[in-house]
Amino acid sequence: MDIACRLDTERAAVESLLDRWLPPEGEFPERIHEAIRYSALGGGKRLRPIISMAAARAVGGDPDSIVPAACAVEYVHCCSLVLDDLPSMDDASMRRGKPTTHRAFGVATAILAADALLMHAFKLVAENGVTVGADGETIAAAIKELATAVGSYGMVGGQHVDLETAAQVSIAPETLEYIQSRKTGALFVVSARLGPLLAGASTRQLAALGEYARNLGLAYQIVDDILDAEGTEEAIGKDIGRDAASHKKTFVTVHGVEKARGAALELVQAARSALDGWPDEADVLRKIATYCASRTA
Amino acid sequence: MDIACRLDTERAAVESLLDRWLPPEGEFPERIHEAIRYSALGGGKRLRPIISMAAARAVGGDPDSIVPAACAVEYVHCCSLVLDDLPSMDDASMRRGKPTTHRAFGVATAILAADALLMHAFKLVAENGVTVGADGETIAAAIKELATAVGSYGMVGGQHVDLETAAQVSIAPETLEYIQSRKTGALFVVSARLGPLLAGASTRQLAALGEYARNLGLAYQIVDDILDAEGTEEAIGKDIGRDAASHKKTFVTVHGVEKARGAALELVQAARSALDGWPDEADVLRKIATYCASRTA
Repeated sequence: MDIACRLDTERAAVESLLDRWLPPEGEFPERIHEAIRYSALGGGKRLRPIISMAAARAVGGDPDSIVPAACAVEYVHCCSLVLDDLPSMDDASMRRGKPTTHRAFGVATAILAADALLMHAFKLVAENGVTVGADGETIAAAIKELATAVGSYGMVGGQHVDLETAAQVSIAPETLEYIQSRKTGALFVVSARLGPLLAGASTRQLAALGEYARNLGLAYQIVDDILDAEGTEEAIGKDIGRDAASHKKTFVTVHGVEKARGAALELVQAARSALDGWPDEADVLRKIATYCASRTA
Repeated sequence: MDIACRLDTERAAVESLLDRWLPPEGEFPERIHEAIRYSALGGGKRLRPIISMAAARAVGGDPDSIVPAACAVEYVHCCSLVLDDLPSMDDASMRRGKPTTHRAFGVATAILAADALLMHAFKLVAENGVTVGADGETIAAAIKELATAVGSYGMVGGQHVDLETAAQVSIAPETLEYIQSRKTGALFVVSARLGPLLAGASTRQLAALGEYARNLGLAYQIVDDILDAEGTEEAIGKDIGRDAASHKKTFVTVHGVEKARGAALELVQAARSALDGWPDEADVLRKIATYCASRTA
């Protein structure tokens, strides 16, 4: 099956899993659960949980056994989108083709829903550790990996430096890479490692998956920035052209579209190389990398 | 030693532990770490970690072995204060005698610092689970307990209903209890249970500690509301009289100060009763309960 078709099929399957693993509709307090479900469901490429499940398969594991952890990573991603969109941060009005959570529910509920999603993710990872029979050190390592990816050395740090440098005229290339490796890369790395970690993958396998995902995450972000500069709002489902307008520092605004395309291709190649010598079960991961460089939405 | 003196001595000791277990000053990104430290250090009664360590002692454990988990609970508390104080929530200007985090660092940095503190707490609990040699199920239970206390069925849910009902003319007593047991009670319960859970306390011990802390948390909150109505800003270190002004529903605004005093005393008695038959090692927990009813700041 063509990878774009396959990703679309898996996206639909993941969407239904994401629904099933959330608190149900109508649960008290209703409005906060509505906001949680609004923020997590109904859109997105769902690339992170698809990578999680493909990574579990690539190390010889059963993808179905790590579904909660795969969903957890996507919930964390959704949490970060809600926070990034807030008026005090990127002040975005549209996300995934609908009003951002704070526009639909108000700022306070958006912040609370985001944190509830984050907490739900940790609960699922802990539970998943038990269902796969992981020992204490492994469960602790999984929790630490997720917490570190989100915290001040991860996504929070990246978002902070991103906001801080928006007001500056220029940015050092290493600061830009810091932002992108934390804001996007860190969670890609967790996507690829968390399930295999719980399922008992070797240190060597985990290192290769981390290297794969680190490069993939940077490539993905660069393509995102190219799409922001060149895409249409209809195709992407969120505000576009915002990076230049808000003086945001991206690979594209710093190095230009041409150089950005070249860098994305190189990073995708590096992601694929990290899996050199891996069996056929890693093919989906390889194809995802190639797809990420060529996507148009 | 008189319990007020003892709490003061322990508070100073906890303050230095809280400092030690945070990311150090000057760590990149500096400003976010500054905001984290500003939000977590330099004030507060530190009752939650003191309860954690007293609870560890009460079940025959070594309080020093669960210091990271005890600090984690306080970091979560500080995270919740930063979020509660935001302009979109309680819009508070002072906390612990100094400007609230968003007034000192801006709203975006406050939100990010709060989430970073939360993530740091999860990392510490996971690490602490390993250092005390807890098995997978125990570490997972500790993480789930903390995540549930914070998430949509815990503090987030309580804060949401609190904000939602602020605009209403009246509130049902059970809704008020829902808010207070989630906003304050949930984390008190975690304070008393998390360390003992990691250190291998029995289900029965954990249930009694939960009952103790649930009642203590409600009593503590009621006394807080009495102090808001009657205290002075200098003594308490935060804005006072805000509950009535903002039409906030508290035990005091709903039932009056007299009834509130009676309810607090009853709850403190229930907290103490939960430890009936416990050895002398539980004395500090009992004294903390009594102290909470009589505190004036």
